[in-house]
Amino acid sequence: MMAQSGKVGLWLIGAKGGIATCVSVGWAMLTRSLTSKVGLVTELPQFAQAGLVDWPDIVIGGHEIRDVSLAEESRAFASVNRTFERQHVDLIADALESIEQQIRYGTVFGADQMIAQLASPNVPRDRSAREAIERIAADLKDFKSRHNLRSLIVINVASTEPPVDPSQFPAKWSELEQLLAEQPDPGLPTSTLYAIAAFETGCPYINFTPSLGPALPALDELAQHNNVPYMGCDGKTGETLMKSVLAPMFRARNLRVLSWVGHNIFGNLDGKILDDPRHKSSKVQSKDRVVSGVLGYHPQTLVSIEYIEGLGDWKTAWDHVHFQGFLGVPMVLQFIWQGCDSILAAPLVLDLCRLTERAHRIGIVGLMPFLASFFKSPYDVKEADFFKQFQMLEQWIESVSHSHPS
Amino acid sequence: MMAQSGKVGLWLIGAKGGIATCVSVGWAMLTRSLTSKVGLVTELPQFAQAGLVDWPDIVIGGHEIRDVSLAEESRAFASVNRTFERQHVDLIADALESIEQQIRYGTVFGADQMIAQLASPNVPRDRSAREAIERIAADLKDFKSRHNLRSLIVINVASTEPPVDPSQFPAKWSELEQLLAEQPDPGLPTSTLYAIAAFETGCPYINFTPSLGPALPALDELAQHNNVPYMGCDGKTGETLMKSVLAPMFRARNLRVLSWVGHNIFGNLDGKILDDPRHKSSKVQSKDRVVSGVLGYHPQTLVSIEYIEGLGDWKTAWDHVHFQGFLGVPMVLQFIWQGCDSILAAPLVLDLCRLTERAHRIGIVGLMPFLASFFKSPYDVKEADFFKQFQMLEQWIESVSHSHPS
Amino acid sequence: MMAQSGKVGLWLIGAKGGIATCVSVGWAMLTRSLTSKVGLVTELPQFAQAGLVDWPDIVIGGHEIRDVSLAEESRAFASVNRTFERQHVDLIADALESIEQQIRYGTVFGADQMIAQLASPNVPRDRSAREAIERIAADLKDFKSRHNLRSLIVINVASTEPPVDPSQFPAKWSELEQLLAEQPDPGLPTSTLYAIAAFETGCPYINFTPSLGPALPALDELAQHNNVPYMGCDGKTGETLMKSVLAPMFRARNLRVLSWVGHNIFGNLDGKILDDPRHKSSKVQSKDRVVSGVLGYHPQTLVSIEYIEGLGDWKTAWDHVHFQGFLGVPMVLQFIWQGCDSILAAPLVLDLCRLTERAHRIGIVGLMPFLASFFKSPYDVKEADFFKQFQMLEQWIESVSHSHPS
Amino acid sequence: MMAQSGKVGLWLIGAKGGIATCVSVGWAMLTRSLTSKVGLVTELPQFAQAGLVDWPDIVIGGHEIRDVSLAEESRAFASVNRTFERQHVDLIADALESIEQQIRYGTVFGADQMIAQLASPNVPRDRSAREAIERIAADLKDFKSRHNLRSLIVINVASTEPPVDPSQFPAKWSELEQLLAEQPDPGLPTSTLYAIAAFETGCPYINFTPSLGPALPALDELAQHNNVPYMGCDGKTGETLMKSVLAPMFRARNLRVLSWVGHNIFGNLDGKILDDPRHKSSKVQSKDRVVSGVLGYHPQTLVSIEYIEGLGDWKTAWDHVHFQGFLGVPMVLQFIWQGCDSILAAPLVLDLCRLTERAHRIGIVGLMPFLASFFKSPYDVKEADFFKQFQMLEQWIESVSHSHPS
Repeated sequence: MMAQSGKVGLWLIGAKGGIATCVSVGWAMLTRSLTSKVGLVTELPQFAQAGLVDWPDIVIGGHEIRDVSLAEESRAFASVNRTFERQHVDLIADALESIEQQIRYGTVFGADQMIAQLASPNVPRDRSAREAIERIAADLKDFKSRHNLRSLIVINVASTEPPVDPSQFPAKWSELEQLLAEQPDPGLPTSTLYAIAAFETGCPYINFTPSLGPALPALDELAQHNNVPYMGCDGKTGETLMKSVLAPMFRARNLRVLSWVGHNIFGNLDGKILDDPRHKSSKVQSKDRVVSGVLGYHPQTLVSIEYIEGLGDWKTAWDHVHFQGFLGVPMVLQFIWQGCDSILAAPLVLDLCRLTERAHRIGIVGLMPFLASFFKSPYDVKEADFFKQFQMLEQWIESVSHSHPS
Repeated sequence: MMAQSGKVGLWLIGAKGGIATCVSVGWAMLTRSLTSKVGLVTELPQFAQAGLVDWPDIVIGGHEIRDVSLAEESRAFASVNRTFERQHVDLIADALESIEQQIRYGTVFGADQMIAQLASPNVPRDRSAREAIERIAADLKDFKSRHNLRSLIVINVASTEPPVDPSQFPAKWSELEQLLAEQPDPGLPTSTLYAIAAFETGCPYINFTPSLGPALPALDELAQHNNVPYMGCDGKTGETLMKSVLAPMFRARNLRVLSWVGHNIFGNLDGKILDDPRHKSSKVQSKDRVVSGVLGYHPQTLVSIEYIEGLGDWKTAWDHVHFQGFLGVPMVLQFIWQGCDSILAAPLVLDLCRLTERAHRIGIVGLMPFLASFFKSPYDVKEADFFKQFQMLEQWIESVSHSHPS
Repeated sequence: MMAQSGKVGLWLIGAKGGIATCVSVGWAMLTRSLTSKVGLVTELPQFAQAGLVDWPDIVIGGHEIRDVSLAEESRAFASVNRTFERQHVDLIADALESIEQQIRYGTVFGADQMIAQLASPNVPRDRSAREAIERIAADLKDFKSRHNLRSLIVINVASTEPPVDPSQFPAKWSELEQLLAEQPDPGLPTSTLYAIAAFETGCPYINFTPSLGPALPALDELAQHNNVPYMGCDGKTGETLMKSVLAPMFRARNLRVLSWVGHNIFGNLDGKILDDPRHKSSKVQSKDRVVSGVLGYHPQTLVSIEYIEGLGDWKTAWDHVHFQGFLGVPMVLQFIWQGCDSILAAPLVLDLCRLTERAHRIGIVGLMPFLASFFKSPYDVKEADFFKQFQMLEQWIESVSHSHPS
Repeated sequence: MMAQSGKVGLWLIGAKGGIATCVSVGWAMLTRSLTSKVGLVTELPQFAQAGLVDWPDIVIGGHEIRDVSLAEESRAFASVNRTFERQHVDLIADALESIEQQIRYGTVFGADQMIAQLASPNVPRDRSAREAIERIAADLKDFKSRHNLRSLIVINVASTEPPVDPSQFPAKWSELEQLLAEQPDPGLPTSTLYAIAAFETGCPYINFTPSLGPALPALDELAQHNNVPYMGCDGKTGETLMKSVLAPMFRARNLRVLSWVGHNIFGNLDGKILDDPRHKSSKVQSKDRVVSGVLGYHPQTLVSIEYIEGLGDWKTAWDHVHFQGFLGVPMVLQFIWQGCDSILAAPLVLDLCRLTERAHRIGIVGLMPFLASFFKSPYDVKEADFFKQFQMLEQWIESVSHSHPS
């Protein structure tokens, strides 16, 4: 039960992409009781007393750079991926239309050619990073005031950016701020501009992608200063979730992993972007650190992500684990994961919105390590074992349920 | 470090079967540093301070009903299953020979035709259950005194028996004892006769099979009365281990399992016995309860175990998990496990010997729930989540390390 | 191009089951150019000159024992199995309605309880086998004359019956005919009653199931006497197709198959019927003979078919082939087939209708061995190699194309 | 039965690599009846009357650039890959020793750094391509005369070279010959130098690798002029064999392949060489052409080969085939191949030796298209369907059996 008055905003960067589309369709169906609560972590019994925001009290908006219609994207997603049925989309057409009204043009400032070419000609061409930040911030403030929101959670579900070396930027916010004032383009990626805009307007920020986003010392300082929590990065939905579950089994049984090979194929827009080697490398690094993170040694690992157009949003992963048992005997575990990526991600985005808002409400500032189980590469969290990460979440929600009756 | 003087005995029921063969080969190699400690749970760092018995301080003996040679079985196991090399067996020939000297004929009293037909004509034909118990007990006592053992751990690694209804036996030991005194055959299965013999001679007993063994109220009373700990049942080595690891993942993500199908094929002697439908049903029940035990609801499940002679000890399992994600979208996880069953089981038997001896030494009596992670169907333990079971073990060993410096 | 005037009838036994539903939907979409010709063997280039009947010249009718609507079954099939879209069904609603008008109540005479319990109370309860045959025959004749059909092909796509020993029936038609005249129930299964009705009315008959159908010497005599061709049995759609393709590879490379295990899971109505052990045994036998038929020796084989409700029409098969290479080295091939069974079967039924009609038109009588590639257990054809079977078809169609210009 | 007198030589380029090691071990075991004939195509019944050379009439020699011992490589292969047993190697030690005596240092002229670094410092450093050819030719002539061989078959089983553009070399032998006379290094890869040496000494040449070898118009002319047959390229042992068997199934059933992804992992020396992107590209091209070659259209395909050290010679391939059935329904076939690559290749090399010698004996000159079924990329053969290729072999051997009684 929500004690406080006011609505909560969920602002999606990449608001008409596959994940955001499923978030919007899912939220609309939830509020109309057209779907069950399967897939939502925050609907498990242990979250019932934590005073999380109710689904009808959420308002969705976001930034997008393409000229597409959310309703059309929803129908196409349904048809291409044979997930929910098109006629269900018709039942929530008005809800999708009202979200559509809340979507603004994002920025391509800081984006590379691969992303920029997707953008509508109507996307405003910001002349400097600071100008982009201001425009984004204005959209956030406007949304907040228009809907009288008590809190606005910004979640980045846009395409993966190429890796950036964070050490090239000053560690202090005052210096980075000055750089932004002086240089039109200090080299910050788009995801970081969004994070700055969020923090400067007092909005918590969740990085569901492996892009840089808020992962800079200067931004941590900014978040602290503005009393907002944030977390990331890279939602853990399928193959990496499996790794973070299975690697602890090998460790607990003292079975030695010799090699862990994971091949991923899929065909959605994210896959198309990842088909570019620079974008792909961000993702592969994020997927690859789990195994040795859990095991404490470095078996040979290999991760590939390949774009196979006909698969659409259905990510198929084949993992081959070669391990050594007692007396040196080599054995093999293989798994094949066939999951619809955006359908797996969407409820986690909704969960993160609720949990982040709750953390914000009780005054948590900066990193939220208790959200580690949602991410492939949780900021500042060494624990890579999914179940230990999940226990951190359970313990936090237990403490919230007892100490902060809503 | 072992503070107390004296050796510890490990008594294997089924002492020349596949698991026991690997236990003996493994123990011999460990004591001569011919193999690494991979696969041994008790060699993980968290067990280092718990005062567990050192490998050289263990003496192995056992009961067997077939006329085969341990060294020959070891060589055959190596060749047929392409595991360790035959020439390694030659290096430990003397150790195997000395174990061979400690092996006595077991009993087939209480066994069905399927098992009895495997027995050597030289196996003594006991005329009553009580006579069988006495003969077994005499072997245990003799072994104990001959080697001046401070403790003797009896572990059942014999073939799976058909299921028995435990409610047909009296719940009090005094009544069961009287029955044994009065009736030549009160219908107790062989595994239970061994358990009675163990308890009556003060030996802890571990049931590594799904056979009935000590799982009767009357035997619990007997164990309590004789101050011995015991645990079971059915070692968790491969496919069921995977289930107890993956089912918690589905639960933690609120993904609804629609069906879980597991097909197991293998070709060792155990598989041949399990090819008999009555023996198989014990195993299938034991393997099948994990999924709903973790999930808290009952998806459609199916478990098969089939004997495919050419596979030898290599158990191949294909599991197909059909689950529902957000918005009702069905997805699939499949895994294929290719493990050498006896090689997976053997280190767990050695671990259980060490841990049970430690528990016995600090005075633990009756069930040992902290050993649940080793079993498919841990006695009296509802928790089916492998990692929660493993935490119980870690917590116990932590407490032992601190409270009972050896 | 069709030279002769008149339409061709396709009469489906089990006219509202999964396969028949997909046949009707598929035929309707083909005639309206709403779908491509993928999956239709007779649309391959080598069939172009063979004078096969055009899709618009086919009229569909059939027998069914359940009270369900074809349009509803089509919509349900689309939703449950996420195959074609429901709105496509709307576009062909009138075609489905006109097929619906041509469907008559079948008979449950000769069926066991498992099948009989599915039947509508409105299904006429025939008092004798002969009465059932006459009623069926009347329906066929009526359909033929009402649509002025030049030929009517009867195809059995009903549920699998339990196995029947064919040797219990007289080998001569005159004797079987007399039995039918004298005894109300001479023990013939339903599928055979349909075959007799078809032959007596001059209709070719295709047995797409492993049921007995026309596979009796007496019926062969009847077919010859009435100048009709027939063939069967058991459509080869998925796992068995794979076997008939892969076994020849092992043979050609002189690799020795040690074991071939195939586990099939699915959840359609056919699966529910097959869940009954007696019905299942017919199917398993039919699936199991391919491997040794190709190889010429008998590796250990195992076939299971299990009903997993949630899978609907999606048949998943896991096959594990253990084989020996040079120098005795054992290796493994595994495959996983995820196919929608009725969608795989439907085009083959349409193909068989066209090919059988063509054979009938040029005067072929009795068995049609050139259709072997369509069946798991082709009548009287020893060749189990799919590609050799397919060459028989190609050679026949080549000869038809040249010798019988239409 | 061999009518002609004299022995037949088999000369292996890469004579101590994995394949050659298994060829030598296999040949030695065959001649001593220590192994069965499983895996040898030419031991199938249809080859019995073709007058192929008997195993004891073959003498093995070869070129190698590394300083290793064949016996040691054999034992290591046995241990690392758990294939044949080490003690079997002891039984054939004398045979291996006599082959060892026939092995000469090959050349690294024309090889890149990746290969050259493997070479012993004792390998003669030829100063020109022509000098390398002459030295190789001298070794062949010497071997031939020393053993009084009636024929010497040269088979390239060395590591894969990077791709070379064949159009850069003159199409006429006279011009290429002149180039070799005038320029120290006209840029020909090592495999081509071996082929020239073979042809100039009248030896048939089989290219079991995807390296350039004899695949130049000028070399075809040279082969014709010297009356020798030759063929290649790239032995078809595992995943590609599967492709050439399964793709025809999809074609025959008119099922449309949308994508075909194949990931290969293995850890032998060949894999280490292929880990270099330039060497890998030769292999990937060769593996990738089969699918569209059979289907006649171009589905999206992807082939990867990755070096995973711990797997040794055990090549594991996962193939994911996404295909469209009737009514546009997408389905999936996946297979996992776990084969020991050199064990699969070795008998084919022995088969090719016998078949090539037979072809040479009856005067066949130039390409041997009837050997297409042995190769991933058979020279000048469009037919990619394995069974059609195999029929070409059967027809040829049938004609040889009848027309050329030995």
